[in-house]
This record gives sequence, C-alpha cells and structure tokens, in this order.
Amino acid sequence: MADQGLVNTGKFSHLFPTSSKQYTSGISNTVVDYVILFRYPTAPKKGMTRESLATSVSNGFQELSAKLLNSNLMYQVREGTEPDTILVFVYCPWPVLKKHLYQSRLHDFLIGVRVNTLDDHEHENEEALDAGHKLTEAERLRLVYEIITSPANEGGANISPEVDKYVESIFPLHNDELNKKWIESWSHKWFIQEDDLQLIRDHFGEKLAFYFAFLQNYLLWLSVPAAMGIVAHFVLKNTFNIVYGALVMLWSVVYLEVWQRKERNLAVKWGVRNYSKHDKQHSGFTGEKMVTDEITGELVPYCPPWKLFIRRAVTVPGVAIAAAGLSLVVGFVFAVEVFLHEYYNGPFHRFLHYAPTIGYVLLIPTMSGFYTKWVKALNDWENHKTEASWEYSYTQKIFVANFLVGYLSLFITAWVYIPFGDHLLPYLDVFNIQHNHQKVGTERLKAQLIYFIITGQVVGFFTEMILPRIMAIVQPKIMSILKRGNGNGRRSSGTKAGDPNSKDLDTAPKMTEAEGAFMQKVNKEVAMEEYNIYTDYVEMVIQFGYVSVFSTVWPLTALCCFINNIIELRGDAIKVCKYTRRPIPRRAESIGPWLGNMQTLVWLSSITTASFAYLFRSSTDTHSPWTPIFTIMAIMANEHIYVFIRFIVRYAITLVPTWADTVARQEEFKLKKRWLDRTAANEDEYVAKEIGEKQQEVGEHESFWMEHKQPELEVESAISTIQASFKND
Amino acid sequence: MADQGLVNTGKFSHLFPTSSKQYTSGISNTVVDYVILFRYPTAPKKGMTRESLATSVSNGFQELSAKLLNSNLMYQVREGTEPDTILVFVYCPWPVLKKHLYQSRLHDFLIGVRVNTLDDHEHENEEALDAGHKLTEAERLRLVYEIITSPANEGGANISPEVDKYVESIFPLHNDELNKKWIESWSHKWFIQEDDLQLIRDHFGEKLAFYFAFLQNYLLWLSVPAAMGIVAHFVLKNTFNIVYGALVMLWSVVYLEVWQRKERNLAVKWGVRNYSKHDKQHSGFTGEKMVTDEITGELVPYCPPWKLFIRRAVTVPGVAIAAAGLSLVVGFVFAVEVFLHEYYNGPFHRFLHYAPTIGYVLLIPTMSGFYTKWVKALNDWENHKTEASWEYSYTQKIFVANFLVGYLSLFITAWVYIPFGDHLLPYLDVFNIQHNHQKVGTERLKAQLIYFIITGQVVGFFTEMILPRIMAIVQPKIMSILKRGNGNGRRSSGTKAGDPNSKDLDTAPKMTEAEGAFMQKVNKEVAMEEYNIYTDYVEMVIQFGYVSVFSTVWPLTALCCFINNIIELRGDAIKVCKYTRRPIPRRAESIGPWLGNMQTLVWLSSITTASFAYLFRSSTDTHSPWTPIFTIMAIMANEHIYVFIRFIVRYAITLVPTWADTVARQEEFKLKKRWLDRTAANEDEYVAKEIGEKQQEVGEHESFWMEHKQPELEVESAISTIQASFKND
Repeated sequence: MADQGLVNTGKFSHLFPTSSKQYTSGISNTVVDYVILFRYPTAPKKGMTRESLATSVSNGFQELSAKLLNSNLMYQVREGTEPDTILVFVYCPWPVLKKHLYQSRLHDFLIGVRVNTLDDHEHENEEALDAGHKLTEAERLRLVYEIITSPANEGGANISPEVDKYVESIFPLHNDELNKKWIESWSHKWFIQEDDLQLIRDHFGEKLAFYFAFLQNYLLWLSVPAAMGIVAHFVLKNTFNIVYGALVMLWSVVYLEVWQRKERNLAVKWGVRNYSKHDKQHSGFTGEKMVTDEITGELVPYCPPWKLFIRRAVTVPGVAIAAAGLSLVVGFVFAVEVFLHEYYNGPFHRFLHYAPTIGYVLLIPTMSGFYTKWVKALNDWENHKTEASWEYSYTQKIFVANFLVGYLSLFITAWVYIPFGDHLLPYLDVFNIQHNHQKVGTERLKAQLIYFIITGQVVGFFTEMILPRIMAIVQPKIMSILKRGNGNGRRSSGTKAGDPNSKDLDTAPKMTEAEGAFMQKVNKEVAMEEYNIYTDYVEMVIQFGYVSVFSTVWPLTALCCFINNIIELRGDAIKVCKYTRRPIPRRAESIGPWLGNMQTLVWLSSITTASFAYLFRSSTDTHSPWTPIFTIMAIMANEHIYVFIRFIVRYAITLVPTWADTVARQEEFKLKKRWLDRTAANEDEYVAKEIGEKQQEVGEHESFWMEHKQPELEVESAISTIQASFKND
Repeated sequence: MADQGLVNTGKFSHLFPTSSKQYTSGISNTVVDYVILFRYPTAPKKGMTRESLATSVSNGFQELSAKLLNSNLMYQVREGTEPDTILVFVYCPWPVLKKHLYQSRLHDFLIGVRVNTLDDHEHENEEALDAGHKLTEAERLRLVYEIITSPANEGGANISPEVDKYVESIFPLHNDELNKKWIESWSHKWFIQEDDLQLIRDHFGEKLAFYFAFLQNYLLWLSVPAAMGIVAHFVLKNTFNIVYGALVMLWSVVYLEVWQRKERNLAVKWGVRNYSKHDKQHSGFTGEKMVTDEITGELVPYCPPWKLFIRRAVTVPGVAIAAAGLSLVVGFVFAVEVFLHEYYNGPFHRFLHYAPTIGYVLLIPTMSGFYTKWVKALNDWENHKTEASWEYSYTQKIFVANFLVGYLSLFITAWVYIPFGDHLLPYLDVFNIQHNHQKVGTERLKAQLIYFIITGQVVGFFTEMILPRIMAIVQPKIMSILKRGNGNGRRSSGTKAGDPNSKDLDTAPKMTEAEGAFMQKVNKEVAMEEYNIYTDYVEMVIQFGYVSVFSTVWPLTALCCFINNIIELRGDAIKVCKYTRRPIPRRAESIGPWLGNMQTLVWLSSITTASFAYLFRSSTDTHSPWTPIFTIMAIMANEHIYVFIRFIVRYAITLVPTWADTVARQEEFKLKKRWLDRTAANEDEYVAKEIGEKQQEVGEHESFWMEHKQPELEVESAISTIQASFKND
C-alpha cells in the first residue's frame, strides 16, 4: 500500500481520456482546483550549512502538508520541470466546499451583498438574478482560494507566499476547452454580448468580467468621437475646432455618467452589489488595540481616525517628491530630444538622433520602476483598513506615474515649448550652437501626439500579443532542451533519490499519454506570468485621456483608438487565456478607482480644450504678455462650463430610474414582506406590545363624544347657522 | 335624545376641570385632534341667487359631514367668532387610529424608514431608538391628518382646502401647558439640549425639530467666526484681512460637513432615516397613464423622464426673466439711493433722502410678491413626482429672490460702483448736476453691509416679536367689539336660527366657564397666521451668507449674528407657540434644500473673499485695465482652493464612522440574522435546495484521490525530491 503511492505513476491516467467531456461539464473542469508552486533555494546563505537549509526546506514542506491536511484539503505532489520546484495539486472535497459555500452566502446575505434571499425561489427577476443560485466555476475557485489562504481561526489553511517562505505562488489551472470556445466565438462577431460577459464572470470572476464589460462599453462609445473626428478632420479641416472640442467634452461627461449606471446594473446582475462596502480587511492593517466590531461582533483591530489621516497626509509630499523626480526625467528626455532634433546640427547629429529613443525605452521605464516600488512602500505605510481602500490609494499613485509618462511631454510642448520656445534662440547663439530652427508651431504638438498614439499602440500590441507568441514557440524548445538535461518533471521516488542519473530511465515510460499531456499543460502554466489587471486598465484609461484631453490636437485620435480597441478586446482575451496564468477569481462591484481617474481626465480636458482653442488660434499672438493671462481665463471659464454640464447631465440622468435600484428595492421589499407574513403580526397584537393601550386613557372623555353620536343633529345645527347668516345680511 | 345634542351646551364642561392634567399626560392633550375651519361666502356671485348659494354651502357642509362619518371620525360643530364661519372639531377614536398606526409603521418598515423591527424589543440602542416605539403627540396628529386628508381609496376622508370649496384650513390646537413649560425652560438656559429637541420632535414633528436643531447648531458654530471677527476687528484692524477670510471659508466648509453628519444622526434617532427617498407623491403630479409601481405593486401615474426634463429646462428661462426683473428693481432702488445720497445736491434733497427707503419698504417686497406667485406657478407646471422634489425646486426659486434682495446691492457696490463709479463723474457735469462727491471707497460697502445686518435684524425682530405682541393685545379688543355686535360664537340652535337677535340672550349663559375658556382659545388660534417654515429658514440662510460671503468687509458681522440668534432661537419658539397656529406635524430627514443653498453660498464666499482681498488692497490701482483681469484670476484661483479644501475636509471626515450608519447597519444585520434563525436553514438543506448535489458528479474521480489518502507518503516523496536536488548540485 505504501509503495503503491510511490510507484503508481499512472494515477492521473484514468482521468484524462474523458477530459474533453469534463472541460465542458461546467462546474469543475478538472480534479485539480489549485496548484501551489513550492520553490526552494539549494545554495545556502552565509552562516547556514547546506544541511540546515535542506532541513528548513523539508520542514517548510511538512508544515504546508500539515496545513492542507488540517483543512481537509486533498493534495498530490509532483516535481516541477524547473529545477528545485515542487508542484502541489490541491483539491477541495465537496463536503468541505459545501460548508464554506453556505457560510459565504450567509455572510453575503447578512452584509447586504445578495439581494435575493437564501431560501426563496419566487423571484420576479429570476432569470436576471440566477447568478445568485448557481455555483459557478469562478465561485468554486474563489471559495477554495479562501479556504487555502484564510487564517486558521476562520477555518482556513493559512497558506500564502507571505506566510510560507517557500510557497512562491498559488494559482488555478486554465480551462482550455472553454478558453478555446470563448476565443473562437469572439473571432466570429464584432461586438460581445451580455452572455459573453456572463461567461467571463462565471469562469474568471467579477473583477475580470468588469474589465471586459468596461472595454466593450468603452469601445462602443468611442464610435461617437471617432465619427465626429472624421468630420472634424476631413470636412472642417480645422485642427483646434471649438465645436469638436466642446462635443468631445460633452461626450466624456455623458459617457462616464452612463457607464456608472451600467456598472450598477451589472453589479446587481452578478450579485456583487454593496460588495465594496464590506470589503475584506486589508491583511497589512495594524491597529493599536483589538475592539469588537459594532456590527458583526467580531474582534477587529482599531486605529484612531486622526492617525490614519495624518499618515495619509504625510505620504502626499512623499508621492509629490517621487513624481517631481519622474517629471524631471521625462522633462530631461524631452529637452534632449527637442535639442537634438530641432536645434543641434553639430558632429554625430545623425547618430545622436536616436539617443532620446533610448531614454524612452530604457531610462523612463527604469525610473517608473523605482517610483512604483517607492509608492508601494508608502501605500503600505498608510495603513489601510480594507483591500478596496488600499487598492484605491495605490491606483491613484500608479496613475500619477502613468499620467506623467503619458502626457507630460505633451503638456510641456503645448504650454511651454510652443508659447515660450522662441525665447531660447538667443541663448543658443551665445553658446555658438549651429541650428536650422524655424518658428515652433502646433505641428510639433500634433506630431508628438501621433507618435504617442501610434507607437504606444504598436508597442502595446507587440508586448501583449507578438512577444508572448514568440515566447510560446521558443519556450517549449528551451523546455525540451532543459528536459533532456534535467528529467521530464516526473517526481523521483524516495528510494532512488540518491541516484539522479537513473531518473530519466525509470520514470518517463511509466507516465501515460494523458498524464503526460496534463503535466505538460501544468508546466506551461507554471512558466507563465501572472495576469496583471492594473496594466490593462491603465492602458485604457491613459488612452481615454488621449481622446478626451488631446483629441482636439488631432481629431483622428478617437478613430485610431477605436480600431486599436477592436483588436485590444480580442488581444486581452487571448492574453488572459494563453499567455498568462489563470487569474484567481475575485469579486468587484465596479471598475473601482479608474472611474475617478477618468473623471479627473475629463476635468483636465476642460482645461486643455479651452487653452488649445485660445492659444493656437491663428489670431493669437503668442508673444503678447496678455496671452498667458487670457489663456488662463479661457481655461477657468471652461472649467465652470464643465461643472455646469456635468450638473445638467447628472440631473437629467437621475430622472430615469435604474433597473438595478428597482430590482434591489423590489427584493428588499419582498424579503421584509415575507418576513412579516411569517411573524403573523396583526395590529392589535402589535399595538398592545409596542405602545400599550395607553390611548384608552382618554376613553373617559370618549363618553362625551359618544353621547353625541347623531351626526345628523350636527349637520342640522350647522345648516341652521348657515341659513341664519344668509338671513342676517 | 335628539334634543340633548342641541341643548346640552355644557358638553365640554366635564373635560376642562382636568385639563391641566391632560396637558401633561403626553399622548393626547385634548379631546380635539383637529379643527376644520369652514368659511362660506354669503354674497352670491353674478348669475347666482342667494338661495342657490345657501343651498351650495349647505350641500358642502353635508358632504364634509358625510366624509367624516365614512372614515369613522367623530366631530362636533360650533359657530365661529368670525362671521360666516363654522368650526368643526374632529376627533379620531382609538380603534381607527390604531389601525392606521399599524399600517403606517408597517409601511415605514417595508420602505426602510424604520431601522428597528416591528416585533422585537432587544435593541442595543433601545434608548436612542425608542422614538420608534412610543406614540407621540406629533405622530398621533400626523396620522390623524393623514386620515383626514388622504384619498378615499386609501381609507382617508379626502378632506382638504383643494377638494372642499368651503374648507379654508385644517389645523391642530396648541398644547398650551406644554408650550408654556417649553418656553419657560428655554428662558433659563443658554443653550438647548438634545432633550429639548426631542420634546419639539415629539410635539411638533421632525420638520420643525430639524429647524430648531439647525438653528441651535448654527448658533454654537457661529461663536467661532464671532471670536475670529473680534480679533480681526480690534487687534488686526485690517478690514479685508486675507487670513480672516481664509479662516472663515475653512470654517464654512467644516461647519457644513459636520452639520450633515449631525443631521444623519438625528434622522436615525428620530426614526426618519430614508424618509426622503420614499417621500409622498406630490398631489399635483399628473401622469400620461397609470402604471403598476414596480416595488410596491400599487397603481401610480407615469410620465416619461424626458418630458419631465424638458419642463424643468423650460422653466429655467422663466425664472431667469423674473429674476432679471427683480434685479432691475433692486438695481433701480440702489441707483436712486446712491444718486440721491452721494451726488444729488439740488432742491428738496433733504426730503428726497428718504425716497430710497420707501423703495426698500414698499417696492421691493411688492415685486418679490409677484415673483413668488410667478415661480410658484412655474414650479407647479414642472410636474414634480414627490413632495420633496417639489419643495426642493420651489425652495431654489425662492432662494434666488431672497439672494437678490439680500445681496445684489452689495455686489453692485463691491464689483461695479467702487471700481467703476468714478467714471460717472464726468457725466454728472454734462447734466449740470451739482455734487459734492469724493472718491468712492470701501466705507460705502461696509456701511451698506452694516445697514443690512442691523436693520435686517431689527426689522426681523420687530415683525416676528413686537408686531405679534401688539396684535395679541389689540386683537382681543377688536374681537370683543365684534362679539358685542355679532354674538360670541356660540352656535345657534336650529329652531332659533330665524331669530338672530335672540342668540346672545339664550346661548351665552349656557356655556360653562371651562368651555368658554376653551372656545376663547380656539377662536384666538383661528385668528392666527399659519406658521411658515420657509421664512424662518430663509432668514437664517441669508444671514449665514452675510457671515460667510461678506464678513471680510466687516468682521463683526458674525458677532452681531451670534447675538441676534440667541434672541432668534427663543423668538422663534415663542412665535411658533404663541403667534402662529400650531403647525401640522410633518416628517423630514434633514433641513432639505437649504443645505445646498448654503453650499452655494460657501462657493460664492470663495469668490468674494478673493475679489475683495485683491480689489480693496491699498496697493491696487482700481483704474488700471489689469485690475479686473487680476481680480478674476484671484477669484478663480480661490475657487480651486475652495474645491481642494472641501475635498480634504470631506476625506478627513469619512475616516470617522458615524453613529447613525453604525446603528442602521447593526439593526439591519440583526434583523437578517433573526430572520435566518427562524427559517432554520442549514447548509445541507440549503445546498441541496439551491445548488443540488451536482458537485458529486466529480465523485467518480474522487476515488483516485481517495486511493492516495496517506499524506505521509506525499510528504515522503516530496522530501526525497528536495534531498535529491540538494545532492544534485
């Protein structure tokens, strides 16, 4: 029996002949929920012997194993293809999952996330809300992840890279059959439907589904400025057209307001309404003391609000310094670029032409990397209570960096270089620099915007789509070379561990074809990058900025973005299915902080549109001292127009009731009504219990009223009064 | 039995010996809930005979009587003191009230107004939330009013001045004992407490209680700018002090944010949370068709949102035209005033000095009256769905008028007359007008502000406090004169109606002393004005504007307002108790639209503070063409500072959880928990019902996992892998 476990290499074999059926069976596509990647060092650090490291690693694994066992999770062990890795396959048996499922749904209901109740099937919105009943693949994986990672006192296994030294990552496996179906179906249609989003939600969770819903919705809305841009560019032929600028601003405002309604509808449909209000506690949150939560009665850490406020206030200059540093780098690269391209005519000028590109490709990303690390440390120090709050704050900081890299040189060109650039020329003569420079015009700004949009999209497409494809072809070849040298990833049996050379010979043939295919799939996914949703969002939000903030410079911007996004939508789908590990399903109620960033961009667009419209009119004399002042006044006037437009649009939109609010209120109303029916209260009982019959105290006076019960007498007397007054006059 | 009703004039007599006890017994202080004032004309209109009018009036009364009877309300009839009026005393018997009370509380619970449930007494916040249990005088009166006025299909009597031609008004009677106690208690303390507010809420309803809560809170907060103003005025001696201006702006922002929290707490405490979300349908709302309400299933009128939007968009120019007209009048009065005071030196100039005051006292109020009528018509035409929406829209329109009357001449002085006034002088010479005019300085603005504040408060005090006191002394004398000529208001019996001269002789002696006193009280209240909460709010909000928008001109403004409001607080209490009819208790969740108006004023203060600070600096040359431009730039910069400060203050405040939200969420959590306990669900049952045992489908593969249950073997194999890799290197 003991040996059977070690020598039966065909343990997966009877599973995989039916794999294609399982992949489509919906709920659980494989018998493996999660893979835990256990990676250990073999080179000991200073002051540590090889033996003590080996013991530490062994203990680490034993601890991991004990944790899994304690939580009643099943697991299997395989050696990884990469050296010094062990793969632990985890499966959650149904009774364990069932218990957690019930607790989770109960909790959702109690905190108001589920609008539908736990025991009732009579919903008018049954179809729309069935999300609340079915157990989807995403929910299963989310629950199992919770079991694996949550602390022991909450019944979890408490396994995570933060807690376990040698656990590198925990990730689910792709459902290849479904992914294939998904991508095939998308390649046959222009626009994705609600059903497609539902599919993503059911298999990858709400967070990813919201990204695709946003992307799809944004793509559709982009058609409006794209069409307007075509008219502005080819018909009006006026670059800084005020009407076009005003319409883009209006479009931006309307789009963001309508999207928020769409978001609320999706949140109700996907059963995540109010989720953000009761977000998970941020694991890094530290309190001064533990207090009882006033609502749920659980023990939670407590930190006084003023301390939180001070911490957040203190990080602001921290971020500002880093942003200033990054701005200097961007500004420096820009200055060098302008100098070399426009002024410098000296030796090596052909060669030096390429120097700025090196800056864009190497210097700026490196500095962005430093910035990211620094703001992450700051963000952790801010001591956020919830995951959502942490993420919000972090996203803002990341956005600042992307904002600077994406837009700063455009702002410098528009607001500094074009209006004031001519003042530089005399200084160049002082330094005896040869130049063939002409007057700075708006073409420079336009060229730069086009460069950003086109190169940005090409580079994005390359890194997201082409590079992974190349890697997908190259990697297996490397793998097979590695395999030949290092075994095929089959775990060595204990008895033969001392003889590494014999591994290839006795293990390879014992693996069935199905198991081999499965291990190949797993190893491929182990080698993949983790999916990073920030990158995808930030790309789209910065792109939205080009459309709303800068498209008056080049009205074809929106058209370019529209075409790009048709590809982007599919590209992102392929990326998430083929080139990254399957993301752990997470819940989300909205696209989160990105909405606020887009709103900031729309506000900014009110500034740029006005300033460009005034500054780049042919009649404006850029050398007049009045010009900066009138530009600022145009900007500020337009800011007021923006605030006013937003007010009107919001007011108009509130007049239309949302489906989401109606459904939520319906369900709440019904819940309460049913609850009342069950309590079988009636007015007598209720009044007696709640108010008592105190009112009867005045009963002693009722006798007076009762005496005069004949109302006809009252009428009679009134009528005689009336008649009398008519006779009086 | 029939005659008994007519001749027993002592019907109230056995009630009033114990009246003082009843007044303090809390729930129902008298046996009369409402008085319906029935007033009929005796002079027929053209084309109508005296007889047909008499018949119409008689029918009107019979109808009224029938409606009361159908709703099981008890009533008694008396002839009013004023000619051609009948007083109908209405009393709601306990069984009728009980039924309506239960329905009302049930409805509140269903729509989420009540946070506490209907059948549970175990609240942690018992004391704070007992408002939800007790039946207060205000609730009783509110419910009875609902019974009297609501439509027949909702079980009401459908009586209202809109429906019944001769019903002039419906009002409750004052609880004199309580009023006396209340005013006495306030005269002994400086600041009113939560208990005092609770008392107002219990007796006059939440709407009035919110006004007093606001007034009290505002008074306390005013001490801050009052103290700052004393420092700025006596120590700094600098009228347009920037630091003072900035601190007042900060104070305004913080005050309004903190008040909103206070408001939310009071709403929970008084059991009116969410009330505004489910406000009553506005009686004037007309739909194109009747549809079923999606939430409650009731039939409600429906009007498409775009039509509502268009109507509201169309009234904007309507209001703008009226506001422009009013502005012209205010501007004209101002221009005449300036001309006569500062320039005119010709004949009758002593006499003409008083002409502008006539404008302020007669012309402007008259025009405001026209404005009010016009915007009320516009507001009705806007077709508001709810009372709250109607009131919001109406309040905004009223605010515009008060804003113009209160501030326009100050703005003209500050922004037109002072900077550009000197340009007028040459024109005066052209017309050969004598003048002894000097350069226009800021003293003019200061003098005008002081005039507004001091006269405004003195006039307010006079009309609110002195005038009613005079009337209270004069009126009874007029009444007694009238009485002597017209009887003392005792109804004439049917048989003697034909003989008006005999009325005095046979009815007066039959009334007992207690009944006489009661009728005197009733007649006094009939003669009173109705209480108008708009006037009180608008006075305070306009005053808040003087502090936040203009106090940099004269820093003692806040101190004056502080002193005024100590009197105002008591004055308003006396007014509502003694000089107006008792207001019908209404519910409210907040001070409503006034908050938004105050926010608008704070935004405006960012404009005025900046413009005054720049424009009235001694170093500013008002004749420079740059001055208007730099003023506008200072204004716009300060607007940005305002938005930023507001953002920071709001963010800081969100870090502190509110008592109200915690309590509301606690109660909801408990409700759901109790509900779940009752359904006695457990995970097996739940999962079987909701999801089915579909998960068992993978059970066929579980056998595989079960085979390898010995986890120690897995550990062993992993450890041998680890050891192998250490040996490999």
